[in-house]
Amino acid sequence: MSATSLTNRQVRLAKRPETTATREHWNFTTEPVGEPAEGGVLVKTLTLSLDPAMRGWLNDAKSYIPPVAIGEVMRAGGVGRVVASKNPAFAVGDTVYGTLGVQEYMLIEQDQIKRNGLVKIDLRAGTIGQWLNVLGMPGMTGYFGLMDVGQPKPGETVVISGAAGAVGQTVGQLAKIKGCRVVGIAGGAAKCDWVVKELGFDACIDYKAGEGAVRAGLKEHCPKGVDIYFDNVGGDILDQVLAKLARKARIIICGAISQYNNANSMPATGPRNYLSLLVNRARMEGIVVFDYADRYHIAIAEMAGYLKDGRMKSKEDTVKGIDTFPEALNKLFAGENFGKLMLEVAAD
Amino acid sequence: MSATSLTNRQVRLAKRPETTATREHWNFTTEPVGEPAEGGVLVKTLTLSLDPAMRGWLNDAKSYIPPVAIGEVMRAGGVGRVVASKNPAFAVGDTVYGTLGVQEYMLIEQDQIKRNGLVKIDLRAGTIGQWLNVLGMPGMTGYFGLMDVGQPKPGETVVISGAAGAVGQTVGQLAKIKGCRVVGIAGGAAKCDWVVKELGFDACIDYKAGEGAVRAGLKEHCPKGVDIYFDNVGGDILDQVLAKLARKARIIICGAISQYNNANSMPATGPRNYLSLLVNRARMEGIVVFDYADRYHIAIAEMAGYLKDGRMKSKEDTVKGIDTFPEALNKLFAGENFGKLMLEVAAD
Repeated sequence: MSATSLTNRQVRLAKRPETTATREHWNFTTEPVGEPAEGGVLVKTLTLSLDPAMRGWLNDAKSYIPPVAIGEVMRAGGVGRVVASKNPAFAVGDTVYGTLGVQEYMLIEQDQIKRNGLVKIDLRAGTIGQWLNVLGMPGMTGYFGLMDVGQPKPGETVVISGAAGAVGQTVGQLAKIKGCRVVGIAGGAAKCDWVVKELGFDACIDYKAGEGAVRAGLKEHCPKGVDIYFDNVGGDILDQVLAKLARKARIIICGAISQYNNANSMPATGPRNYLSLLVNRARMEGIVVFDYADRYHIAIAEMAGYLKDGRMKSKEDTVKGIDTFPEALNKLFAGENFGKLMLEVAAD
Repeated sequence: MSATSLTNRQVRLAKRPETTATREHWNFTTEPVGEPAEGGVLVKTLTLSLDPAMRGWLNDAKSYIPPVAIGEVMRAGGVGRVVASKNPAFAVGDTVYGTLGVQEYMLIEQDQIKRNGLVKIDLRAGTIGQWLNVLGMPGMTGYFGLMDVGQPKPGETVVISGAAGAVGQTVGQLAKIKGCRVVGIAGGAAKCDWVVKELGFDACIDYKAGEGAVRAGLKEHCPKGVDIYFDNVGGDILDQVLAKLARKARIIICGAISQYNNANSMPATGPRNYLSLLVNRARMEGIVVFDYADRYHIAIAEMAGYLKDGRMKSKEDTVKGIDTFPEALNKLFAGENFGKLMLEVAAD
């Protein structure tokens, strides 16, 4: 079958959401699949990564990456298979990772290969799910956020919000491997149980367990204060942890999922307890994973080793079918995903 | 005249202020001056330092230093003269710096000398006013905050709030010496003019010049964004600067004078724009000057050199008479002081 006889179903941004993005903000289109020109490749999408950051890409605001334009195919990273190639670096049948977009096929011309981060991946090092989780952007975010910004020392207390999420699960397991005491914060007893029993966290605080649960949990599980806080959620939980900082604490600002559906992703209020940074000579620092691209290979090699020897687990939550994209994405903001959320567009 | 025939007028904390500390929160007492025991010294207070941090010491809250107790002589650092000594390290006539308290005489027994930070100072290196400003706590705070946390590089843009205040004037002049572009933020045209014309800042934004003045000023004077922000004030100005950060910016949290008279010094709202730390991979870090005590001598030597060769100026705002203490302290929070505020208890 020639590539030109294929059709490509796509999800495009129809209009910008003020708060939650719903089905009305997306257009579904179908167009013919083109042939790659000299130097280009055609990739069939297998599984896409669904990430909290995607919500921010929908806002017309200055950020670390330009917003998705109206009418453009929604940006998404994912794993695919090369189905046609006029580039000697990629052969038909190669498994690749890159920015593929929410569509069944991605035609990538030579001058876009680097921009879209297209790289071959080795399924002997990890499954597709693992390549989108521990070995992918969430894993890299967790690795460099914890190691470079957090600089954990054995015996230190590390607190992680969104502990059962993609970044959180990696950070917690890695902090355990590095000899830290690890306390998660997650929503619901099931996630908390899993984080402690399956991933080996020392404790997990259920933020849905009622008024005061986070404060009480931090008091119980962090008697010497918090040395490192890896923040994926922002909002009130960030404020509660600020109130429990140890001297010379480090806070890694990775995200603020509790705020992403506010207008312009703008928090309703900032962290009132930020002067705890002064009292405790502490540091709060933002991380964007792309800055570490030239060191991904080092982190991937280390993490693949932990996956192999069983010291690290990867939990994935896979939704099937490109047509479910609008609702699937919103599972993240409702805290309904359990593990790294991904969208299977085609079975391998 | 024997020390025992002297009387000691003192200002003691009568009750804790909820918001602004007024005369009703203080008691004035007079008691006889005692004689130092073996190893002790008696110091006559000359000039005391009045600092924003003093407001925080009045709150019954966990901080980097215990609160002043009800009935206790108000804590204050200052310069004095040794008038009696049974300690070989101090001779009558020596000029000293230390925690003397808001009182005319301080009897310091041997076991309190270190705790009160009593050290001899050399008036050839600087005047009493300079020893309480550039060569004292404000200068040390500015020096280590800028150099250790800020790590300025030539050509970078440094913004300083409270620019005409004690810490701010040192930070700005030091940043100029280190080759940075320096933009101050201060209240009123007189302070702004002085900061630019006398201290050599590149620009100064008058935050009292009306709605939008800070935003417009930052836009005009920081076209490439803010590399280092030295924050003495907190509140809305912190939020405005957060919105203008350059990549890899550093924010030094030194204080938040706009919030100190709130109940428990608790900001009404936190910095809503804190996610700018993420977008810009920036860092916000608190500094407490006492952590650098073992390196004060290095900074003092460097700064005394700048005072001598005229590259650094020291502006002091001296109020006279211990009885004026309650009102003098509040000049800080009204922004009425022009330069380092100090209280002359006795002429030298």
